[in-house]
Amino acid sequence: GSSKPMKQTLEMPLIKDVMAPVATITLGFSVHEAAKKIIQDKFNHLPVVDENSRLVGIVTSWDVSKALALSKSDKLAPIMTRNVITVAPDDPADLAVRLLEKHNISALPVIDKDKKVLGIVTGEGLSKLISRGVQP
Amino acid sequence: GSSKPMKQTLEMPLIKDVMAPVATITLGFSVHEAAKKIIQDKFNHLPVVDENSRLVGIVTSWDVSKALALSKSDKLAPIMTRNVITVAPDDPADLAVRLLEKHNISALPVIDKDKKVLGIVTGEGLSKLISRGVQP
Ligand SMILES: C[S@@+](CC[C@H](N)C(=O)[O-])C[C@H]1O[C@@H](n2cnc3c(N)ncnc32)[C@H](O)[C@@H]1O
Repeated sequence: GSSKPMKQTLEMPLIKDVMAPVATITLGFSVHEAAKKIIQDKFNHLPVVDENSRLVGIVTSWDVSKALALSKSDKLAPIMTRNVITVAPDDPADLAVRLLEKHNISALPVIDKDKKVLGIVTGEGLSKLISRGVQP
Repeated sequence: GSSKPMKQTLEMPLIKDVMAPVATITLGFSVHEAAKKIIQDKFNHLPVVDENSRLVGIVTSWDVSKALALSKSDKLAPIMTRNVITVAPDDPADLAVRLLEKHNISALPVIDKDKKVLGIVTGEGLSKLISRGVQP
């Protein structure tokens, strides 16, 4: 078959070059509903937003497991992480690598100046970049 | 303070250079017990072994969420993944990057010829390698 030449930038990639779309949930979701969304959408990281679509927390399958392990209530608020480490679209991609390592986390929501969620950067996504020969 | 010079190999790193220790569980565990272990030990990937310590499956917080989402039983067998993608200690590290990408997973158990679990390689661990300037 034919193959198109792959575009490759020699400049340092930015967060917006490596981020992926992400689904969000609201504080009204239960743990059970969050678990369903994680499984259905195959997103492991669900940013939680308030009524103005602003980021207020993040929930992962890890937090769902925590709810089950601790047999806590089915409410999202007690198990979500509130201090979310985030990046901006124009940050350099290597900042994400350093933040993931420093905080021992697997994904970073990308937000704009109004805390609206634009996407997500995962260790997986960064590994893909690297496996294509791009050094972040 | 004083700082030791860091050892750095110019050769391609092997799986055994990048793998981390991992806890395993047996088929006798319940989903609830697996969730507890995931939270307590902070291991997201629990290889499941049989009575001869041979790998038979893997359970992650993802599978725990699936159990909760589907309100399945508390048994481990129905929710664990049986076709585990694995690597060997002497495989090159870049094989792990390719397998994680190809199968859209976040960790690979490292097993010997008898299917005994020696450790685990995660996307995170590989990212750390890369952030230290080593190209897998
Ligand atoms: C397909 S991933 C999807 C979620 C997310 N991308 C992640 O990696 O966690 C989740 C599933 O992968 C399975 N899994 C994890 N590591 C695996 C491995 N090395 N081989 C086969 N399946 C694995 C888990 O049991 C779980 O059912």
